[in-house]
Amino acid sequence: MENAIVMVRCPDRKGLIARITGLVSWLDGNIVTADQYTTALEGGFFYMRLEFCFQPALTGWDRVESAFAALAVELQGECQVHRSGVPLRVGILVSKQTHCLADVLFRQSLGELPLTVAVVVGNHPDGRALTQHYGVPFVQVPATRENRAEAEAQILRQVSGTTDCLVLARYMQVLTGDFLQAYGRDVINIHHSFLPSFKGARPYEQAWERGVKVIGATAHFVTEDLDEGPIIEQQVQRISHRDDAETLKRKGRTLEQVALAAALEAYARRRVFRHGIRTIVFD
Amino acid sequence: MENAIVMVRCPDRKGLIARITGLVSWLDGNIVTADQYTTALEGGFFYMRLEFCFQPALTGWDRVESAFAALAVELQGECQVHRSGVPLRVGILVSKQTHCLADVLFRQSLGELPLTVAVVVGNHPDGRALTQHYGVPFVQVPATRENRAEAEAQILRQVSGTTDCLVLARYMQVLTGDFLQAYGRDVINIHHSFLPSFKGARPYEQAWERGVKVIGATAHFVTEDLDEGPIIEQQVQRISHRDDAETLKRKGRTLEQVALAAALEAYARRRVFRHGIRTIVFD
Amino acid sequence: MENAIVMVRCPDRKGLIARITGLVSWLDGNIVTADQYTTALEGGFFYMRLEFCFQPALTGWDRVESAFAALAVELQGECQVHRSGVPLRVGILVSKQTHCLADVLFRQSLGELPLTVAVVVGNHPDGRALTQHYGVPFVQVPATRENRAEAEAQILRQVSGTTDCLVLARYMQVLTGDFLQAYGRDVINIHHSFLPSFKGARPYEQAWERGVKVIGATAHFVTEDLDEGPIIEQQVQRISHRDDAETLKRKGRTLEQVALAAALEAYARRRVFRHGIRTIVFD
Amino acid sequence: MENAIVMVRCPDRKGLIARITGLVSWLDGNIVTADQYTTALEGGFFYMRLEFCFQPALTGWDRVESAFAALAVELQGECQVHRSGVPLRVGILVSKQTHCLADVLFRQSLGELPLTVAVVVGNHPDGRALTQHYGVPFVQVPATRENRAEAEAQILRQVSGTTDCLVLARYMQVLTGDFLQAYGRDVINIHHSFLPSFKGARPYEQAWERGVKVIGATAHFVTEDLDEGPIIEQQVQRISHRDDAETLKRKGRTLEQVALAAALEAYARRRVFRHGIRTIVFD
Repeated sequence: MENAIVMVRCPDRKGLIARITGLVSWLDGNIVTADQYTTALEGGFFYMRLEFCFQPALTGWDRVESAFAALAVELQGECQVHRSGVPLRVGILVSKQTHCLADVLFRQSLGELPLTVAVVVGNHPDGRALTQHYGVPFVQVPATRENRAEAEAQILRQVSGTTDCLVLARYMQVLTGDFLQAYGRDVINIHHSFLPSFKGARPYEQAWERGVKVIGATAHFVTEDLDEGPIIEQQVQRISHRDDAETLKRKGRTLEQVALAAALEAYARRRVFRHGIRTIVFD
Repeated sequence: MENAIVMVRCPDRKGLIARITGLVSWLDGNIVTADQYTTALEGGFFYMRLEFCFQPALTGWDRVESAFAALAVELQGECQVHRSGVPLRVGILVSKQTHCLADVLFRQSLGELPLTVAVVVGNHPDGRALTQHYGVPFVQVPATRENRAEAEAQILRQVSGTTDCLVLARYMQVLTGDFLQAYGRDVINIHHSFLPSFKGARPYEQAWERGVKVIGATAHFVTEDLDEGPIIEQQVQRISHRDDAETLKRKGRTLEQVALAAALEAYARRRVFRHGIRTIVFD
Repeated sequence: MENAIVMVRCPDRKGLIARITGLVSWLDGNIVTADQYTTALEGGFFYMRLEFCFQPALTGWDRVESAFAALAVELQGECQVHRSGVPLRVGILVSKQTHCLADVLFRQSLGELPLTVAVVVGNHPDGRALTQHYGVPFVQVPATRENRAEAEAQILRQVSGTTDCLVLARYMQVLTGDFLQAYGRDVINIHHSFLPSFKGARPYEQAWERGVKVIGATAHFVTEDLDEGPIIEQQVQRISHRDDAETLKRKGRTLEQVALAAALEAYARRRVFRHGIRTIVFD
Repeated sequence: MENAIVMVRCPDRKGLIARITGLVSWLDGNIVTADQYTTALEGGFFYMRLEFCFQPALTGWDRVESAFAALAVELQGECQVHRSGVPLRVGILVSKQTHCLADVLFRQSLGELPLTVAVVVGNHPDGRALTQHYGVPFVQVPATRENRAEAEAQILRQVSGTTDCLVLARYMQVLTGDFLQAYGRDVINIHHSFLPSFKGARPYEQAWERGVKVIGATAHFVTEDLDEGPIIEQQVQRISHRDDAETLKRKGRTLEQVALAAALEAYARRRVFRHGIRTIVFD
């Protein structure tokens, strides 16, 4: 028995769940979990995540894939089929702060996250030794405002074709719209504030100056609008007047690790759908 | 258009979701939300909550009800149909502490909870004025260890037939198995600890003595085994060495209110299923 | 034995704690709790909250008060002496949403908060019956953008001299700088978002549109800059894609109640100090 | 300028804070933070943590130390003086699960925790490579129920004199009372449940079976009574019916890391006092 995960996106209409789950029955599949969400009762968009087990020896992955390809046409939407045993291939971009990198590498080494880190690209040497300790290739691509185009071209050569998504694990360079378009897949960033509060640079200093009593970290998809992409996960923690910008950074590191790990796990398990500036994240 | 909520419980088997959602299509219903859970991949039990809208003028509630009654037979399980516009009728039992009572009455008055408080029974006069302020009948039934049988008979007369469930809103008397059986419907209690820690009497004192750093409150179904019933909801809060049993009680009051309100809302929206000592609570 | 609470604010310098606690010894007081905070190691400002018990029959409140008045001069700062048994007199302003009002009135009725609600002013009739149920006077002062000056004058007559602070319990009119200056005491507001996110009107709609995964509520001092005053307390809660603006409002109500109650309790226990746009809140 | 941290423990009496802070003034120290707690108004015990900066070139560490040694005699208690620049030396014991070890080693490498890991002892080889990656010695001491005495003797040789405290980072062997007495310093354990719930073995399985809606992790001092020692820190997280024992373990790992890191940081900063079965942890 193997598990298939299907991600369905299409305009809503009556009878969709019956139609889709009926197809699984017809393929001799047994539904393990099914989650669905409709954005509006009238004229809404329909999202479904379906995990079912079946016997590839009897039904065949080909038949599953072609059945859902045909369904996508019928529904005028998309039906992506993923094999649950095939891990997501992730490329990580990092700068000097390596706590998120260290956390992802360690969780990957436990087999906790259904993903493989294919390559780590740093614009500084920090993180090289740790990355190599886990047997993952580390490539240094010095990136500054000045050499952006060249650096992005170099990064693209490292991650194109070998990764299914990119993770900015406290990568402090802005990626251009050209890069995002050329890469063509999802890029996930961890921002060190409770967005939309404290966008941009030095969010912990901003939080301290404003005197908030709770700080946060936000994992979100990267779009051309800096810190405005769809939010996947947020983590928060109480603070007090005793904290200063330094202790906020220290406390924030844990929030960033936890938020990024949760977002990556949901993404790698195919639980995350983008809908405009919003996300649907099935538990 | 009206909304129907169907709660399905039956042994798991292939094709269940397709079968059930197909029936909704056949009834010309449009699924608003569907949640399901299977307790085990092999030989498990299947739980589903289905909310769909349809036109009673065309399809008729009768036809919906008889269709699901027939389905229940087919599935060798249960298919309860609820009209989402019909509020749950709740009876509340209370002693001297009235914060949970006050909270439920106020939320009901906002129309926030899909329920109606039918009657409040107190074994003390506390809560009478507030209950009557909200236009709800208050009946005092002094209950002690000595007059238990008589008191329970009196309570039963107040709540039988007129309530769909009972809520023990810090009711400090134990209900006997005989009472629970005679009442025959769900009874929900709010216990002032993070169960299974600190069962029984004086949980805040117990928590203080043990020196925990987090306290909690637990809403659960009442069974004959005191403080051992299936848990619906838990709320927790950090405390410190500065707290004593008195401040724990004060902080705990908010936890109790929030946990009970969340449990009641989920229950009234038909989101809660009991499965042995465990519960399934759909978001 | 009675308890005195002293709030000290002065420029920091060596030996302050020894000087102040030495004075308590000299007054034959026994320190119950002492909290202090210095804003910076060099050239900082010093805040201290000191609670001590003493025998008024022996030492006399006069002597305590004049001793700290002299100390204030010596320290070139302030030393406010409060009698812990004297409750804070609070005026509440409310509009149509009464959940925060209901919560404060109920907690006051329990004796949980060391405060007395002196008067409730509503610009609508909502909340009148509940307020009167608790034996508190309710005055309706219809306030709109058009009659602002007149309405504020009326409110001022209700609260001047009879209240120590004002609470805006979801009061939807902006108070002018003139009013704030004329009142001359602290005004605390509960804002229904996690400030500084979603300032201004309709914050739950803003939060829904941005697609955040956590919502919040913020209790803060009112200043002339709308939603920019010093933050006293923030509460947050996870949400999901299933929530819409309506369920956010419902979930937010509990956050607002809890944040306001916590802020008021801290304030009434004299645990809150303002320092520019920031606050010091001793646990 | 250097910082001294003084931990005072003594019977409570009038004028203590003035006496102790007066001594700091006399030593030409400037108090950075002062926290104190009294266990009871009458006949209580007094705990104080005092951090002050001073000029060793002028005052001398000797003079500071002898002044507080004399004070301890006067107060019939203890006054430990720590140099804040001297890190705590920690020995870590580990079994097969290395997530807490990895977290502490990484945080230490950032300089985030004011401690040095002196040695890691494992009863399995797991964790060796990672430990050595961080340049810390790893010693394998196979420990089973059968060879307990011998294994404990071996461990003792590794940690006596070279460590100020031991951390059981998911070490699955019980330490005997003899070992604890021979070691003579604090031993901190991370237990993978919200104590006092689910003591003993397999707590995540126990939690799943009981059907709780929140899980936790507890960092506590080790005593001869298993899982009964004074609690330093607890972390909790919501779960749902969708979780099984496996996902609880995965989610619990983060709780364990965070709880242990917080406890260790508080301990290393000398913020933790034991008082019987309870702890005082200054923020």
